[in-house]
Amino acid sequence: MQFTTSFVPEIRFGNDLHRTVGKAAAGFGARRAALVIDGFLAQSGLADRIAAQLADEGIASRFFSSFSGEPKLRHVREATEMATGCDLVIGIGGGSALDIAKIAACCAVSGEDPMHYALAAHPLPANPLKKIMVPTTAGTGSETSATTIFTGPEGRKLWIWGPETKADLVLLDPALTATLPANLTAWCGFDAMIHAFEAATNRNAHYGAKLYAHEALRLIGGALETAVREPQDLEARGKVLLGSCHAGIAIDNCGTAIAHNISHALAGLAPVHHGLATALGFESTIGWLVEADTADLNAAARALGLQSASELPSFVSGLMDRTGIERALPAAFTGFDDAALAAEMRAPENQPMRRSTIREITDGDIGVFAARIMTLPKTL
Amino acid sequence: MQFTTSFVPEIRFGNDLHRTVGKAAAGFGARRAALVIDGFLAQSGLADRIAAQLADEGIASRFFSSFSGEPKLRHVREATEMATGCDLVIGIGGGSALDIAKIAACCAVSGEDPMHYALAAHPLPANPLKKIMVPTTAGTGSETSATTIFTGPEGRKLWIWGPETKADLVLLDPALTATLPANLTAWCGFDAMIHAFEAATNRNAHYGAKLYAHEALRLIGGALETAVREPQDLEARGKVLLGSCHAGIAIDNCGTAIAHNISHALAGLAPVHHGLATALGFESTIGWLVEADTADLNAAARALGLQSASELPSFVSGLMDRTGIERALPAAFTGFDDAALAAEMRAPENQPMRRSTIREITDGDIGVFAARIMTLPKTL
Repeated sequence: MQFTTSFVPEIRFGNDLHRTVGKAAAGFGARRAALVIDGFLAQSGLADRIAAQLADEGIASRFFSSFSGEPKLRHVREATEMATGCDLVIGIGGGSALDIAKIAACCAVSGEDPMHYALAAHPLPANPLKKIMVPTTAGTGSETSATTIFTGPEGRKLWIWGPETKADLVLLDPALTATLPANLTAWCGFDAMIHAFEAATNRNAHYGAKLYAHEALRLIGGALETAVREPQDLEARGKVLLGSCHAGIAIDNCGTAIAHNISHALAGLAPVHHGLATALGFESTIGWLVEADTADLNAAARALGLQSASELPSFVSGLMDRTGIERALPAAFTGFDDAALAAEMRAPENQPMRRSTIREITDGDIGVFAARIMTLPKTL
Repeated sequence: MQFTTSFVPEIRFGNDLHRTVGKAAAGFGARRAALVIDGFLAQSGLADRIAAQLADEGIASRFFSSFSGEPKLRHVREATEMATGCDLVIGIGGGSALDIAKIAACCAVSGEDPMHYALAAHPLPANPLKKIMVPTTAGTGSETSATTIFTGPEGRKLWIWGPETKADLVLLDPALTATLPANLTAWCGFDAMIHAFEAATNRNAHYGAKLYAHEALRLIGGALETAVREPQDLEARGKVLLGSCHAGIAIDNCGTAIAHNISHALAGLAPVHHGLATALGFESTIGWLVEADTADLNAAARALGLQSASELPSFVSGLMDRTGIERALPAAFTGFDDAALAAEMRAPENQPMRRSTIREITDGDIGVFAARIMTLPKTL
């Protein structure tokens, strides 16, 4: 056995922890904090309340919330500008807010444009700004991963990757996730569960990541349905949030696989929620995947409470049914055919997820999967 | 539920990883490395081989190995002096080597004497030297904990505690532990297992620490006997080493309990191996402890492969038998009686471990436990 697990940031978990952001910032000796926060959270007054907490600790702050959807180059540029001159970056929101905050914390110290670091063109600065991450969706695991994604000038997805992007402190506050609508709770929860599943079963899977991935599967598999159906059940919300955080640690070490190849390929065609796209990709491939019948697939199935990997396809479809995930694509996908999706699935940037999949994916397989996805109704 | 888990360093696991120390040091951009290494390892040529690896990377190095037994003030002073002017500290050896290295990495940047930081008299420097820890015994978990212990000028145990003492990178190389004699393998392994058990079951136990502690119990409980009986079984050695590392993470968050109260109290009387003392303390108290019958005690028992906490006393005694742990104290304990041990168990520095124990420990209980220990033969 041989493995490496990247460092895991300090993690604090508890209801109403968002009231301790100011004290946490003071713990880093911060004097000027830059806050990247989802627009609707800022409008709800949360940005002002955080600013007041920071002011109570003698910390000046400013915030950036002029973004929506997946991060674009102009968002990460504006956030970098806002963070320049600060000594701490705080990200509060979904994966986009956290990704923007992580990039800004790196670029603000070096003065370089985010494009300078995209696709590993140059090494990241060794001493980025300190970062506190407060996820308000349970999905991307961005709070514990070294990955960020944004859309480049030509509309392509670009990555900035490196331990320098990782959080120093993660605050997990289930109460912050309670207002997330049911469909987003389900989509994000599936994304997190699939992170854990793919990290635990792909070709890069190892003991160190499986420790976190299996715990994530236990937590999310046991609580996602309740979190969707009973939005105020903070215990269930907390389990999904914690599971998402563990899943982030798992993908930080072992990456993902075929379901994420498909979801990134879909995003290359038209805007679609990443969690929904990943769930659709997962359901479309899990029956094919479990034919590999590896020890890792069976162990992941057991972590989900199943007897064996062969039960996974019906488990996945059943959980999608019970959490109300409609098998459909946004209307923006009208006009794209399966050949278009297959081409995206074969695009260079999506090959790591194809190659890491435990079964070899032939071009014929890609054609079959693309057809399954693109025959879904385009009605969302 | 509410908890905090401190950061976990990057962990690399694999046979012969000690051959990658030079490359790991280069990864930190080091130019001058200070090596704290057990004397017998240095004499075996390991220090020279590490120095050659470092030289291959253009890194100058010096080493300190003039210590034996538990660290004394002069050892940490000499190591600090050696590390001053370096930009990286590497600790290779048992818990003492790692503790000395961790202290030196802090004091070398500030120029302060180790006594300046003892018992939290002053805050540690915010930016200590980078630290690579390479444990060669599977026991203390010092490679993942924030604690260091040394003996002060008046012979008292002193602590330096803080996240600043923690490793940046841990290299776990089972091959390095293969020459450890059977009795030390057993003593250190019990120490690690008890770390995990106490962290998972004391009053401070929480979800975040139990994740690591239960895994440590699974690993050590399943492999310790083989590691002792088949010293060249690197798979078993590796499981105990990894378990010890996880147990270090667990105590880093939740601390220990009664068995460590007793082992520290014993060390206050006369020199005794910490692992042996802890095992003796554990066996003497586990029957009393499990009467509490808490959910945590039962969960820890299950992680050890048992049905319930009530099976723990016979499990512990059986494993001590099978790993050849003699129930005896060193001859240096002749002349001390149970009142002397009871007084140490009630000493202020040992009260945190008394208070954290899940059952209240009366002065009467202390008298009973001290009598059990001090009636052991003093023949080692």
